[in-house]
Amino acid sequence: MTPFAELPPPPYYAVIFSSLRTPDDDTGYAAMADRMVELAREQPGFLGVESARGEDGFGITVSYWASEEAIRAWRAHAEHRIARETGRSTWYQHYELRVARVERAYALPVHRRDPMS
Amino acid sequence: MTPFAELPPPPYYAVIFSSLRTPDDDTGYAAMADRMVELAREQPGFLGVESARGEDGFGITVSYWASEEAIRAWRAHAEHRIARETGRSTWYQHYELRVARVERAYALPVHRRDPMS
Repeated sequence: MTPFAELPPPPYYAVIFSSLRTPDDDTGYAAMADRMVELAREQPGFLGVESARGEDGFGITVSYWASEEAIRAWRAHAEHRIARETGRSTWYQHYELRVARVERAYALPVHRRDPMS
Repeated sequence: MTPFAELPPPPYYAVIFSSLRTPDDDTGYAAMADRMVELAREQPGFLGVESARGEDGFGITVSYWASEEAIRAWRAHAEHRIARETGRSTWYQHYELRVARVERAYALPVHRRDPMS
Protein backbone atom coordinates (compact mmCIF):
# COMPACT_ATOMS: atom_id res chain seq x y z
CA MET A 1 0.00 0.00 0.00
CA THR A 2 1.34 3.42 -0.90
CA PRO A 3 2.14 5.74 2.01
CA PHE A 4 1.04 8.72 -0.10
CA ALA A 5 -2.43 10.22 0.15
CA GLU A 6 -4.26 10.49 -3.16
CA LEU A 7 -5.86 13.89 -3.03
CA PRO A 8 -8.08 16.00 -5.28
CA PRO A 9 -6.69 19.27 -6.68
CA PRO A 10 -6.39 22.06 -4.07
CA PRO A 11 -7.83 23.86 -2.24
CA TYR A 12 -8.35 21.54 0.72
CA TYR A 13 -7.27 21.55 4.35
CA ALA A 14 -4.37 19.93 6.20
CA VAL A 15 -4.03 19.13 9.89
CA ILE A 16 -0.31 18.92 10.59
CA PHE A 17 0.28 16.99 13.81
CA SER A 18 3.88 16.72 14.99
CA SER A 19 4.55 14.80 18.17
CA LEU A 20 7.22 13.32 20.36
CA ARG A 21 6.28 9.97 21.88
CA THR A 22 6.90 8.95 25.46
CA PRO A 23 8.50 5.51 25.86
CA ASP A 24 5.20 4.38 27.48
CA ASP A 25 2.61 1.88 26.32
CA ASP A 26 3.66 1.13 22.76
CA THR A 27 0.96 -1.50 22.29
CA GLY A 28 -1.87 0.75 23.36
CA TYR A 29 -0.50 3.55 21.24
CA ALA A 30 -0.22 1.46 18.09
CA ALA A 31 -3.75 0.15 18.49
CA MET A 32 -5.10 3.65 19.04
CA ALA A 33 -3.20 5.05 16.04
CA ASP A 34 -4.59 2.34 13.74
CA ARG A 35 -8.09 2.83 15.09
CA MET A 36 -7.95 6.61 14.61
CA VAL A 37 -6.96 6.22 10.96
CA GLU A 38 -9.75 3.69 10.45
CA LEU A 39 -12.23 6.04 12.12
CA ALA A 40 -10.99 9.13 10.27
CA ARG A 41 -11.54 7.36 6.94
CA GLU A 42 -15.23 7.05 7.82
CA GLN A 43 -15.68 10.76 8.48
CA PRO A 44 -17.38 13.03 5.94
CA GLY A 45 -14.82 15.20 4.21
CA PHE A 46 -11.81 13.01 5.02
CA LEU A 47 -9.45 13.01 2.02
CA GLY A 48 -6.36 11.13 3.15
CA VAL A 49 -3.52 10.84 5.65
CA GLU A 50 0.27 10.52 5.58
CA SER A 51 2.40 9.63 8.56
CA ALA A 52 6.06 9.11 9.42
CA ARG A 53 7.87 8.52 12.73
CA GLY A 54 11.59 8.11 13.23
CA GLU A 55 13.46 5.98 15.72
CA ASP A 56 13.94 9.03 17.94
CA GLY A 57 10.17 9.02 18.64
CA PHE A 58 9.46 12.19 16.70
CA GLY A 59 6.67 11.89 14.16
CA ILE A 60 4.57 13.91 11.77
CA THR A 61 1.05 12.96 10.68
CA VAL A 62 -0.76 15.10 8.15
CA SER A 63 -4.45 14.45 7.60
CA TYR A 64 -6.28 16.08 4.73
CA TRP A 65 -9.87 17.31 4.77
CA ALA A 66 -12.35 18.85 2.36
CA SER A 67 -13.34 21.69 4.66
CA GLU A 68 -12.82 23.33 8.03
CA GLU A 69 -16.22 22.00 9.01
CA ALA A 70 -15.04 18.43 8.43
CA ILE A 71 -12.05 19.11 10.72
CA ARG A 72 -14.30 20.53 13.43
CA ALA A 73 -16.59 17.50 13.26
CA TRP A 74 -13.63 15.12 13.55
CA ARG A 75 -12.31 17.14 16.48
CA ALA A 76 -15.66 16.72 18.24
CA HIS A 77 -15.92 12.95 17.58
CA ALA A 78 -16.33 11.18 20.93
CA GLU A 79 -13.88 8.34 20.39
CA HIS A 80 -11.31 10.74 18.97
CA ARG A 81 -11.70 12.94 22.07
CA ILE A 82 -10.96 10.00 24.36
CA ALA A 83 -7.89 9.08 22.31
CA ARG A 84 -6.67 12.66 22.57
CA GLU A 85 -7.05 12.61 26.34
CA THR A 86 -4.90 9.49 26.61
CA GLY A 87 -2.46 11.04 24.17
CA ARG A 88 -2.07 14.05 26.40
CA SER A 89 -1.75 12.04 29.62
CA THR A 90 0.30 9.07 28.42
CA TRP A 91 1.58 8.80 24.86
CA TYR A 92 3.02 12.20 23.99
CA GLN A 93 5.79 14.16 25.63
CA HIS A 94 4.81 17.07 23.47
CA TYR A 95 2.86 17.83 20.33
CA GLU A 96 2.03 20.70 18.03
CA LEU A 97 -1.03 20.85 15.82
CA ARG A 98 -1.44 23.25 12.92
CA VAL A 99 -4.45 23.69 10.66
CA ALA A 100 -3.65 24.94 7.18
CA ARG A 101 -5.33 25.56 3.85
CA VAL A 102 -3.47 23.83 1.01
CA GLU A 103 -3.27 26.15 -1.97
CA ARG A 104 -0.91 24.40 -4.39
CA ALA A 105 0.35 20.86 -4.86
CA TYR A 106 3.10 19.27 -6.96
CA ALA A 107 4.37 15.74 -7.38
CA LEU A 108 7.42 14.06 -8.79
CA PRO A 109 6.58 13.12 -12.39
CA VAL A 110 5.90 9.41 -12.34
CA HIS A 111 7.80 8.44 -15.49
CA ARG A 112 10.90 10.53 -14.92
CA ARG A 113 13.21 7.56 -15.49
CA ASP A 114 11.61 6.63 -18.76
CA PRO A 115 14.36 7.31 -21.34
CA MET A 116 11.78 8.26 -23.96
CA SER A 117 10.19 11.03 -21.88
CA MET B 1 17.83 19.90 20.49
CA THR B 2 14.08 19.91 20.21
CA PRO B 3 12.62 18.47 17.00
CA PHE B 4 9.80 21.03 17.19
CA ALA B 5 9.85 24.28 15.27
CA GLU B 6 9.28 27.35 17.41
CA LEU B 7 6.94 29.47 15.36
CA PRO B 8 5.23 32.85 15.69
CA PRO B 9 1.42 32.97 15.91
CA PRO B 10 -0.32 32.21 12.58
CA PRO B 11 -0.80 33.10 9.81
CA TYR B 12 2.33 31.76 8.12
CA TYR B 13 3.03 29.25 5.36
CA ALA B 14 3.92 25.57 5.38
CA VAL B 15 5.62 23.52 2.68
CA ILE B 16 4.63 19.91 3.31
CA PHE B 17 7.09 17.58 1.58
CA SER B 18 6.34 13.86 1.79
CA SER B 19 8.76 11.50 0.11
CA LEU B 20 9.72 7.88 -0.31
CA ARG B 21 13.47 7.33 -0.47
CA THR B 22 15.23 5.02 -2.87
CA PRO B 23 17.78 2.68 -1.25
CA ASP B 24 20.50 4.61 -3.15
CA ASP B 25 23.32 6.82 -1.89
CA ASP B 26 22.48 7.27 1.78
CA THR B 27 25.65 9.23 2.47
CA GLY B 28 25.07 11.75 -0.27
CA TYR B 29 21.46 12.08 0.76
CA ALA B 30 22.21 12.72 4.44
CA ALA B 31 24.81 15.35 3.57
CA MET B 32 22.40 17.08 1.18
CA ALA B 33 19.55 17.01 3.71
CA ASP B 34 21.75 18.61 6.40
CA ARG B 35 23.03 21.20 3.97
CA MET B 36 19.52 22.12 2.81
CA VAL B 37 18.37 22.73 6.40
CA GLU B 38 21.47 24.83 7.05
CA LEU B 39 20.86 26.81 3.87
CA ALA B 40 17.11 27.21 4.50
CA ARG B 41 17.84 28.71 7.92
CA GLU B 42 19.76 31.51 6.19
CA GLN B 43 16.88 32.45 3.89
CA PRO B 44 14.76 35.53 4.56
CA GLY B 45 11.36 34.52 5.88
CA PHE B 46 12.40 31.04 7.06
CA LEU B 47 10.61 30.25 10.34
CA GLY B 48 11.44 26.64 11.13
CA VAL B 49 11.39 23.03 9.99
CA GLU B 50 10.24 19.67 11.34
CA SER B 51 11.14 16.32 9.83
CA ALA B 52 10.50 12.63 10.44
CA ARG B 53 11.35 9.50 8.44
CA GLY B 54 10.46 5.94 9.32
CA GLU B 55 12.41 2.75 8.68
CA ASP B 56 10.22 2.08 5.65
CA GLY B 57 11.85 5.06 3.91
CA PHE B 58 8.75 7.23 3.97
CA GLY B 59 9.28 10.69 5.42
CA ILE B 60 7.56 14.01 5.94
CA THR B 61 9.37 17.34 6.20
CA VAL B 62 7.40 20.49 6.89
CA SER B 63 9.18 23.81 6.50
CA TYR B 64 7.55 27.01 7.68
CA TRP B 65 7.84 30.40 6.03
CA ALA B 66 6.68 33.95 6.67
CA SER B 67 5.26 34.48 3.18
CA GLU B 68 4.67 32.94 -0.22
CA GLU B 69 7.40 35.21 -1.54
CA ALA B 70 9.91 33.62 0.84
CA ILE B 71 8.90 30.18 -0.47
CA ARG B 72 9.33 31.30 -4.07
CA ALA B 73 12.79 32.71 -3.33
CA TRP B 74 13.85 29.45 -1.66
CA ARG B 75 12.50 27.50 -4.62
CA ALA B 76 14.67 29.61 -6.95
CA HIS B 77 17.85 29.26 -4.86
CA ALA B 78 20.58 27.80 -7.07
CA GLU B 79 21.98 25.23 -4.63
CA HIS B 80 18.48 24.13 -3.68
CA ARG B 81 17.67 23.63 -7.38
CA ILE B 82 20.67 21.37 -7.84
CA ALA B 83 19.69 19.33 -4.76
CA ARG B 84 16.16 18.96 -6.14
CA GLU B 85 17.53 17.67 -9.45
CA THR B 86 19.53 14.98 -7.69
CA GLY B 87 16.52 14.23 -5.52
CA ARG B 88 14.41 13.61 -8.59
CA SER B 89 17.04 11.51 -10.37
CA THR B 90 18.51 9.55 -7.46
CA TRP B 91 17.17 9.88 -3.92
CA TYR B 92 13.39 9.78 -4.22
CA GLN B 93 11.14 7.08 -5.59
CA HIS B 94 8.29 9.52 -5.30
CA TYR B 95 7.39 12.74 -3.55
CA GLU B 96 4.48 15.08 -3.07
CA LEU B 97 4.81 18.75 -2.19
CA ARG B 98 1.97 20.88 -0.88
CA VAL B 99 2.02 24.57 -0.06
CA ALA B 100 -0.43 25.65 2.62
CA ARG B 101 -1.36 28.68 4.66
CA VAL B 102 -1.41 27.88 8.39
CA GLU B 103 -4.42 29.50 9.99
CA ARG B 104 -4.51 28.08 13.52
CA ALA B 105 -2.04 26.38 15.82
CA TYR B 106 -2.31 24.51 19.13
CA ALA B 107 0.17 22.78 21.39
CA LEU B 108 0.09 20.35 24.26
CA PRO B 109 0.22 22.40 27.48
CA VAL B 110 3.79 22.15 28.70
CA HIS B 111 3.13 21.58 32.41
CA ARG B 112 0.30 19.10 32.16
CA ARG B 113 2.06 16.63 34.46
CA ASP B 114 2.74 19.21 37.13
CA PRO B 115 0.46 18.15 40.02
CA MET B 116 0.07 21.77 41.11
CA SER B 117 -1.29 22.99 37.77
